[in-house]
Amino acid sequence: MIENALKSRWAAGQATLNGWLSVGNAFTAEIMAAQGYDSLTIDMQHGALDYAAVLPMLQAMRASGVVPLVRVPWLEPGVIMKALDAGAYGIICPMVSTADQAAALVRAMRYPPLGERSFGPTRAIYAAGDGYAAEANGQILALAMVETAEAMENLDAIAATPGLDGIYVGPSDLSLGLSGGRIQPGPDREEPEVIEAFHRIVAACRKNGIRAGLHCMTPDYAARAVAWGFDMTTVSGDSRLLALAAGESVARFRASLKSAA
Amino acid sequence: MIENALKSRWAAGQATLNGWLSVGNAFTAEIMAAQGYDSLTIDMQHGALDYAAVLPMLQAMRASGVVPLVRVPWLEPGVIMKALDAGAYGIICPMVSTADQAAALVRAMRYPPLGERSFGPTRAIYAAGDGYAAEANGQILALAMVETAEAMENLDAIAATPGLDGIYVGPSDLSLGLSGGRIQPGPDREEPEVIEAFHRIVAACRKNGIRAGLHCMTPDYAARAVAWGFDMTTVSGDSRLLALAAGESVARFRASLKSAA
Amino acid sequence: MIENALKSRWAAGQATLNGWLSVGNAFTAEIMAAQGYDSLTIDMQHGALDYAAVLPMLQAMRASGVVPLVRVPWLEPGVIMKALDAGAYGIICPMVSTADQAAALVRAMRYPPLGERSFGPTRAIYAAGDGYAAEANGQILALAMVETAEAMENLDAIAATPGLDGIYVGPSDLSLGLSGGRIQPGPDREEPEVIEAFHRIVAACRKNGIRAGLHCMTPDYAARAVAWGFDMTTVSGDSRLLALAAGESVARFRASLKSAA
Amino acid sequence: MIENALKSRWAAGQATLNGWLSVGNAFTAEIMAAQGYDSLTIDMQHGALDYAAVLPMLQAMRASGVVPLVRVPWLEPGVIMKALDAGAYGIICPMVSTADQAAALVRAMRYPPLGERSFGPTRAIYAAGDGYAAEANGQILALAMVETAEAMENLDAIAATPGLDGIYVGPSDLSLGLSGGRIQPGPDREEPEVIEAFHRIVAACRKNGIRAGLHCMTPDYAARAVAWGFDMTTVSGDSRLLALAAGESVARFRASLKSAA
Amino acid sequence: MIENALKSRWAAGQATLNGWLSVGNAFTAEIMAAQGYDSLTIDMQHGALDYAAVLPMLQAMRASGVVPLVRVPWLEPGVIMKALDAGAYGIICPMVSTADQAAALVRAMRYPPLGERSFGPTRAIYAAGDGYAAEANGQILALAMVETAEAMENLDAIAATPGLDGIYVGPSDLSLGLSGGRIQPGPDREEPEVIEAFHRIVAACRKNGIRAGLHCMTPDYAARAVAWGFDMTTVSGDSRLLALAAGESVARFRASLKSAA
Amino acid sequence: MIENALKSRWAAGQATLNGWLSVGNAFTAEIMAAQGYDSLTIDMQHGALDYAAVLPMLQAMRASGVVPLVRVPWLEPGVIMKALDAGAYGIICPMVSTADQAAALVRAMRYPPLGERSFGPTRAIYAAGDGYAAEANGQILALAMVETAEAMENLDAIAATPGLDGIYVGPSDLSLGLSGGRIQPGPDREEPEVIEAFHRIVAACRKNGIRAGLHCMTPDYAARAVAWGFDMTTVSGDSRLLALAAGESVARFRASLKSAA
Repeated sequence: MIENALKSRWAAGQATLNGWLSVGNAFTAEIMAAQGYDSLTIDMQHGALDYAAVLPMLQAMRASGVVPLVRVPWLEPGVIMKALDAGAYGIICPMVSTADQAAALVRAMRYPPLGERSFGPTRAIYAAGDGYAAEANGQILALAMVETAEAMENLDAIAATPGLDGIYVGPSDLSLGLSGGRIQPGPDREEPEVIEAFHRIVAACRKNGIRAGLHCMTPDYAARAVAWGFDMTTVSGDSRLLALAAGESVARFRASLKSAA
Repeated sequence: MIENALKSRWAAGQATLNGWLSVGNAFTAEIMAAQGYDSLTIDMQHGALDYAAVLPMLQAMRASGVVPLVRVPWLEPGVIMKALDAGAYGIICPMVSTADQAAALVRAMRYPPLGERSFGPTRAIYAAGDGYAAEANGQILALAMVETAEAMENLDAIAATPGLDGIYVGPSDLSLGLSGGRIQPGPDREEPEVIEAFHRIVAACRKNGIRAGLHCMTPDYAARAVAWGFDMTTVSGDSRLLALAAGESVARFRASLKSAA
Repeated sequence: MIENALKSRWAAGQATLNGWLSVGNAFTAEIMAAQGYDSLTIDMQHGALDYAAVLPMLQAMRASGVVPLVRVPWLEPGVIMKALDAGAYGIICPMVSTADQAAALVRAMRYPPLGERSFGPTRAIYAAGDGYAAEANGQILALAMVETAEAMENLDAIAATPGLDGIYVGPSDLSLGLSGGRIQPGPDREEPEVIEAFHRIVAACRKNGIRAGLHCMTPDYAARAVAWGFDMTTVSGDSRLLALAAGESVARFRASLKSAA
Repeated sequence: MIENALKSRWAAGQATLNGWLSVGNAFTAEIMAAQGYDSLTIDMQHGALDYAAVLPMLQAMRASGVVPLVRVPWLEPGVIMKALDAGAYGIICPMVSTADQAAALVRAMRYPPLGERSFGPTRAIYAAGDGYAAEANGQILALAMVETAEAMENLDAIAATPGLDGIYVGPSDLSLGLSGGRIQPGPDREEPEVIEAFHRIVAACRKNGIRAGLHCMTPDYAARAVAWGFDMTTVSGDSRLLALAAGESVARFRASLKSAA
Repeated sequence: MIENALKSRWAAGQATLNGWLSVGNAFTAEIMAAQGYDSLTIDMQHGALDYAAVLPMLQAMRASGVVPLVRVPWLEPGVIMKALDAGAYGIICPMVSTADQAAALVRAMRYPPLGERSFGPTRAIYAAGDGYAAEANGQILALAMVETAEAMENLDAIAATPGLDGIYVGPSDLSLGLSGGRIQPGPDREEPEVIEAFHRIVAACRKNGIRAGLHCMTPDYAARAVAWGFDMTTVSGDSRLLALAAGESVARFRASLKSAA
Repeated sequence: MIENALKSRWAAGQATLNGWLSVGNAFTAEIMAAQGYDSLTIDMQHGALDYAAVLPMLQAMRASGVVPLVRVPWLEPGVIMKALDAGAYGIICPMVSTADQAAALVRAMRYPPLGERSFGPTRAIYAAGDGYAAEANGQILALAMVETAEAMENLDAIAATPGLDGIYVGPSDLSLGLSGGRIQPGPDREEPEVIEAFHRIVAACRKNGIRAGLHCMTPDYAARAVAWGFDMTTVSGDSRLLALAAGESVARFRASLKSAA
């Protein structure tokens, strides 16, 4: 089985860069896969796409060698297993707030005796190469999202879940949840209570020998996150990059015309 | 309502042959529907497809008269009912490990008072003909997959579930589960402990007046399964048949060239 | 955020008319959006469609200003949140039979502190305009379907669920459920026990300051429902309107030919 | 090869009724196929669909036995042959204004020696049954649309084209063309010059032993067309039937409310 | 019929900004439609999309009010008319090298007596509002691409084509063509012979009272083009904007990490 | 630009094996791409697919390194250029019967000054690597199908077309055409007149320094074709391989049951 490059990079002490796919299209996926990300996550939760788009997107990303991850819509065994059978090398699961939920995530992702994943990697065997049945349990990443007040209370127990590979942080939901809706959702938070939560998460991951990831908006913030100890950061995503770039292009044209007038 | 030919064939003492669809495409479904299978199962669990493909596949199979079944991704009422409303004449549900789960499967598949299926066979009425509301409970097959160690422990209780029509066996998962991961997944098992489990399943089905099905790879093994008492066997499926046939064709061409050289 | 016109019409004492979309196609959605309905509901439960069709249908309906609703297949947070992120202004949730289920529905639809909806309105922000994060909780409608005997027993508790905006009635399931399968499913019921249930539902909604909706087949029956106090009625839907209109057209042609002969 | 029922009905002196599909969806096609039309034409010219929709629509119509026709976007051999290979039993070709064009249509539709159709009925053989290669030339209908002033000038030469099965009339284009844009496009014309053109077309078809078809809006007008000698009439189509039925339903509901108020 | 805002802006002396869609996806189209472009062109020629994507993209752009244009793959009546029937308010036609070709383009786009467009604006009537049949000839833009050496020789004759609304310039092909392949293709040319050609094109358009458009890469170059007299410029497009923005984001993250190390 | 492996293998004196894709599905394409073919041709002519399927199929094949070819529906510049922009490394063009047609094919495939291909390899640059603009003319294969009586008459002129890379033979059409419909279409012909035509084609290719390819059904026949001098042979294709393999599997199961009875 082709090895999971995230694991080897992390083992080598490198912080990896993740890209984010919210557009359900195989061509934008292929474009993004050519930009040098270490991994790309297809967002089945908030992205404008479902399984019907995930499959061709994974196929379109395959040649690039980028590590394909999927964020599932919810902690449901059916969709988690479908994403893995389609070839995902890792699952990011939203709203994991208890150790039981973290254990359920792991169980859905591992073949017996480590879990209860059902066997049938119909497309995965084409993407992953030989040895899938024997090696998948060791190569595929289980990443739980800690993004609620309840999850912060259960942080240590979640981080200690056997088989869990890491915690991925959604700052919008975490801010909403921690503040009881007071802090408006958004990335790249500066509120001390949120930053403090980030530090606690990194510490809990370190203590349990697992990885920490953070969803960021700007490269600079992501670099700060790496300095804080995050092993994996996401910097924006396809739909927002496109909107910003196009909006900026329009604004510059209008400004150029005006200054020329 | 057009009757379910599997029921009449079984009643006549015939073992039926099921085909398997893992490719999400209406043309491959139409091709497979022309090959003489008694039933064809669209695999929403491990197949490279979801509901968006199931609907046109069911439509493409309709003219052939083959009995359309769907394996759902998981024991979830939403997807089970959608598959039925789309016209499936039976559901194969994975990972049914307790009698409660078997009962939940039945409940999701039957209109009151036998169950809690919600009424709205929007496309099914076009495929099934008149009388759907009154006859669907009696025509549609509820097949639970027994494929874990826990399920084997609960075998008799599962088989005794009122309204369950049969047990379908996934040998890969059953082997993994029974052996705690020692036996590598794969079809057409020869391990005595697995064969023994098959015999127990057939016996439990007979005792409870329900049907037994087995997922096989080769016609010869399927014929053995029939001899063991299975009422329904699957022999390979579209993606594997294609891969094997194409691989063999390439190999024979290369060999022909070499022998000619 | 663009306001939810259903809320303002109801506040003004108007009964609104809802259309129903069972065909998974953006062009039929655009056609239906041009006919003058106050709202259009995409039926992910019994409709011949899933999320892959919902997204372009919502886009095709946007220019018309009709209020877009989605009926989800089941009370599952994943699909509810996906429908909202795609831009739905309300969710109709089937088979809500207890107050706990009604509360779970609300929770899945509201951002903290009112609920646990995860933040990421990726496409919704394009359709809803500015201010989504702050205003969505107040604009988006949570409608629970009361359609089982159990739900009728729990009617007052369901109607009293904080944050619930209304109860929508599916008469086919309600008739099946109330009668233990004796009453064949169908719309526009006349059985006294069913009409009586409608009245109880309207009364429970009034008492709790929420809205009541009814799924109807004919305009005349819908007008009666409005007279009974329903705030929102649905009159047939795309697939049935098409079938009836085409069938009638064929019949008239055959009759014209015959009478001419 | 399954015979073309239009040919046998025409031979028996019956006028056939054609339905029209402008929505690119397999479920609406299946609904329409259940309404009793003799044939259904998928409109690749003005319909909101292309080949990607035609294929599953043809599959969804197969079980009904309705004769599947395709109107192609233009007189181009590539798309004509693709529609035939997908299983169409006839082609309606727009804007055939000369005998050369009519001959080109026939040539694209017939295998040698009658024409130059390329052999490869990949999906057609599944729908048409055995004997396709030998019988397709005799079963498949070539229908040329006469709908320009130039075509009316060349009417007799077009109708005399060897291998042509009939002329299908598009009244909107014919009215526009004959009147140089003075008559606004629309079906069911009453202008004497248009009716006169219809009569001339029927006469030319009769003289040459071929069939005449007319695109109509209402069953009554279609019945008149049959009386004029047309062998095949179309009465409205899916998108317009839906729009009218839904618009009427909305209007009736609004009226009912008002009269109740 | 909703008026074509490009025409009114040009009439008011404004230079308009066009966006470019090469990704076959309705969500990226909706994103782009929110960025403030005057028009958006769906590229059926070099874009990674065909008609099946064009339709939902046009629907997704409708609410924004941006003027929807389509570049067709080639000067073929079938596809030109299909794009118009789907709701395009203008056609950009590649490789128009002679006055005959320009006249053929116009003919395919206008209803009689101005041309030979076939009547059937099935989806266009939903987007364009009332009066389509009468007003479409006057609202819809026919834009011919001048991008070959031959076209430059025939420039005056092309520009003088009755009914042509403008000339759109593809600088890659024009550079390749003018230089016999010596100048490598690419936008924002600086070679004097290419700039000279631009000036000649603007002059020919002015002389004939039609508009001139130029495909550009950067806002600054586009502003220069406006200064040269172009009425309409395109600045980059979705796929390139996304690739550049993502590539830059990755590079900045890598640089931030390095500078932090 | 990644080099075209067919050219290097042919240069090394190897006969290459081509696979054939008639199913419009990216997963079957990925399966086929893993079987060891030298090239795979997506059949836009007789295959049950169009451009909307070609794009994801090319993406799914990319990682395998197999050379992707496309057979276009007809000699039309629009679709030829779209297939190239999508990443095809060669075009097989049907029904090339004259030297003029062969020259038109070449012209549509080469950038100036060798031809008139329009520049815009939107997706191709992701698959082909750097240098596309400069190297595409030299890497991409133009293969004309000789399959009519007229083409055989013009064989030498066709083969001598500057820029043409080879002739590909469709035996069904060639047999039909040569015999005036007497020989029923089908592969792997044994009629002396057809074999004689094959020999003439190989000779004409040799004389002009171009390649010859033959569409075959069985590996053994393909090996004979290689012995006759063909550089490239196709052996069956996805839809037929699947049908045969499934049909055989069903037959063997039925036979096993019978022999066991």
